[in-house]
Amino acid sequence: MTLFGLDRREVETALTRLGVESDDGTTAELFARAAWSGIAEPGDSMAGFLVSHVGASGALTMLIDHWSTARILDAVANGIAGSDLQAVASQVENATARWRPRLDSRSALQQLSLAAACHATLLTPGNPAWPDRIDDLGLHTPLALWVRGNPAALRSTSRSLALVGARAATGYGEHVATEAASGLASRGFTVVSGAAYGIDGMAHRAALATQGTTVAFLAGGVDRPYPSGHSVLIGRIIETGAVVSEIPCGGAPSKWRFLQRNRLIAAVSEATVVLEAGWRSGSLNTAGHAAALGRPLGAVPGPVTSAASAGCHRLIREYGAVCVTTVDEMVELVGDSVPGAEPGGGGRSSDEIRVLDALSVRSVRTPEDVAVRTGLPVDTVHSALGILELDARVAERPGGWVYLPQAR
Amino acid sequence: MTLFGLDRREVETALTRLGVESDDGTTAELFARAAWSGIAEPGDSMAGFLVSHVGASGALTMLIDHWSTARILDAVANGIAGSDLQAVASQVENATARWRPRLDSRSALQQLSLAAACHATLLTPGNPAWPDRIDDLGLHTPLALWVRGNPAALRSTSRSLALVGARAATGYGEHVATEAASGLASRGFTVVSGAAYGIDGMAHRAALATQGTTVAFLAGGVDRPYPSGHSVLIGRIIETGAVVSEIPCGGAPSKWRFLQRNRLIAAVSEATVVLEAGWRSGSLNTAGHAAALGRPLGAVPGPVTSAASAGCHRLIREYGAVCVTTVDEMVELVGDSVPGAEPGGGGRSSDEIRVLDALSVRSVRTPEDVAVRTGLPVDTVHSALGILELDARVAERPGGWVYLPQAR
Repeated sequence: MTLFGLDRREVETALTRLGVESDDGTTAELFARAAWSGIAEPGDSMAGFLVSHVGASGALTMLIDHWSTARILDAVANGIAGSDLQAVASQVENATARWRPRLDSRSALQQLSLAAACHATLLTPGNPAWPDRIDDLGLHTPLALWVRGNPAALRSTSRSLALVGARAATGYGEHVATEAASGLASRGFTVVSGAAYGIDGMAHRAALATQGTTVAFLAGGVDRPYPSGHSVLIGRIIETGAVVSEIPCGGAPSKWRFLQRNRLIAAVSEATVVLEAGWRSGSLNTAGHAAALGRPLGAVPGPVTSAASAGCHRLIREYGAVCVTTVDEMVELVGDSVPGAEPGGGGRSSDEIRVLDALSVRSVRTPEDVAVRTGLPVDTVHSALGILELDARVAERPGGWVYLPQAR
Repeated sequence: MTLFGLDRREVETALTRLGVESDDGTTAELFARAAWSGIAEPGDSMAGFLVSHVGASGALTMLIDHWSTARILDAVANGIAGSDLQAVASQVENATARWRPRLDSRSALQQLSLAAACHATLLTPGNPAWPDRIDDLGLHTPLALWVRGNPAALRSTSRSLALVGARAATGYGEHVATEAASGLASRGFTVVSGAAYGIDGMAHRAALATQGTTVAFLAGGVDRPYPSGHSVLIGRIIETGAVVSEIPCGGAPSKWRFLQRNRLIAAVSEATVVLEAGWRSGSLNTAGHAAALGRPLGAVPGPVTSAASAGCHRLIREYGAVCVTTVDEMVELVGDSVPGAEPGGGGRSSDEIRVLDALSVRSVRTPEDVAVRTGLPVDTVHSALGILELDARVAERPGGWVYLPQAR
């Protein structure tokens, strides 16, 4: 019996060597997903569209059997509005033209062997280790993920932050990355990043040094550690965490693949924090994906005299990134309350709490009166009132101050 | 003829020596404003309330003639809601009790002499040099301003920014203050600050060095340069700019007066920028006043490892301060467009503009297609698309990218 022109038993064996269980009902679909990951470039939404309608195996059959555009459209017509048919027809035409040169079942089988050789495994949607959040990418969801290391680490991204930044990091940026990653790791967050030089590498290293879990997404095959100067680091990530790619083994990274890799980092993580980035850093691309997906986005400020922080300030000024300066503030991005902090942020000093307690909604009270009620020096009362006024918790009225009640 | 128990001619002479013109109709009111500035503490809204209803002269007469609380209330009853009468009665009672010990016409006359001796002048509302924006303080508007130097400099705050920050500034903060003040001064903005050590002093110095106009607000009398270590600097400000206080000459600064002085800095300036400030810096008080007055508020970020920038980050995170990193961004706070920048902020690179030009609202175009249309390398197109996507100017659709039209 053959499958996509291959001996079916050969395919089953190749999958088994990857640790992938399959049976008569699933072998074709699993193999087709693997094959598609080598046929379509990352983020190819036409591939996503076909696979979501007729399955990976069905879509691969269309390609192998040279289905006409009209026949393909017939098969997926329920997914297309009538008025769009002509535009989609031309897109299908273009897509099959670009896929066909890569259509080679033998080479897909070879990719499975390369994966087995480096102890990678194949993950597809529905696998317990598949990171659900990645499905928010819709038609851009990867068709398969190739994973070296511990697939459970990938699953642990359900509680994770992406820490990204420039390759050309400064000592300041590296310090910030180290503090952030070790702080998050020690609070039980998985640290997601891209294994690049600079910020990414420091984030992975610090997470490992804290015995935390860390996951790296690569822009090429997981059998090709990239950058090569990070081979050892990537090897260490594999020992306890996971190294992941949607590109099959043997695949080389490209600029496009780096940009698409960034969407995976943003998608699997609960929030993304840019630690240090120049005005045009690639990490702004990751930030853009996070924002487009509605994920919380933070950026760490730095000296305005440092070009290496200009991208972070840009994110805060122009793209609504939250200014984050501590690990607690990064954790707040994902809505977790930090012990000791007031819900909703800020945190009140004990002086401010005492002053709030001493104020009334109805009666105006002078700072002197509040000083007597709180037992605080008048100077301290004035400072606390200033802070509280800034936060619209108190207001000055003729003769003194009042407390402003508010829903939080 | 007497005035508030003084020889009227003596009062007229004292005002004339200050360069203040008066006549039969205005002498009493001008002198009473000067006297009130020594009787009521800054920001005393009950003094503001009485003066706004019966004039400074009328209010002073109430005090000198020992009007009963009931009679005072009768005179201002149209300003008080019936239900508030009892509360206001007790406030009037308290106010007259705290004002009476300071009621001394001879000492008010003496303050005029001290002012004349240091070549200060007296400004009251309606004077051409009175800074109109200060009236936004309502009942907290100062009753008079004492000015050394050039009153026109105070008037020039109609186009001004307040640059404030911590006394305990770092080299970074001083650098930022110097760049900000000289950049703003060279763009024609008056630099307003508080003459304190650290950030304030650097801002004044840089404005002076750029032949700009700068105005310092003091918390004590303008005849008493404070801090004394800044006597020379304050003298230089007087030469071309203005040194201003609502406290009459001879008055000492106090913590309360510093906090109230901050409200004047925030009120006269178009916007306030905090350049460097610790978590509890007094400059946060100025920021609070600016926010309460609805004035634009900016804060300059710094290293998250520097406690001296923690207050700035706090303003950005918790109080909606705009993250400002350049002089142009400070100017944008007051709504002035910066040449070369797109209205509404941001500024587009020429690459981004070319990519936008090459996209269509209706037809999806691949990055490769855009590269051909723009003549840009595909990598550059990808980068530009990433930035534009972040800004929601473009969107990825099946098969390529489209331009998103938007009202700005």
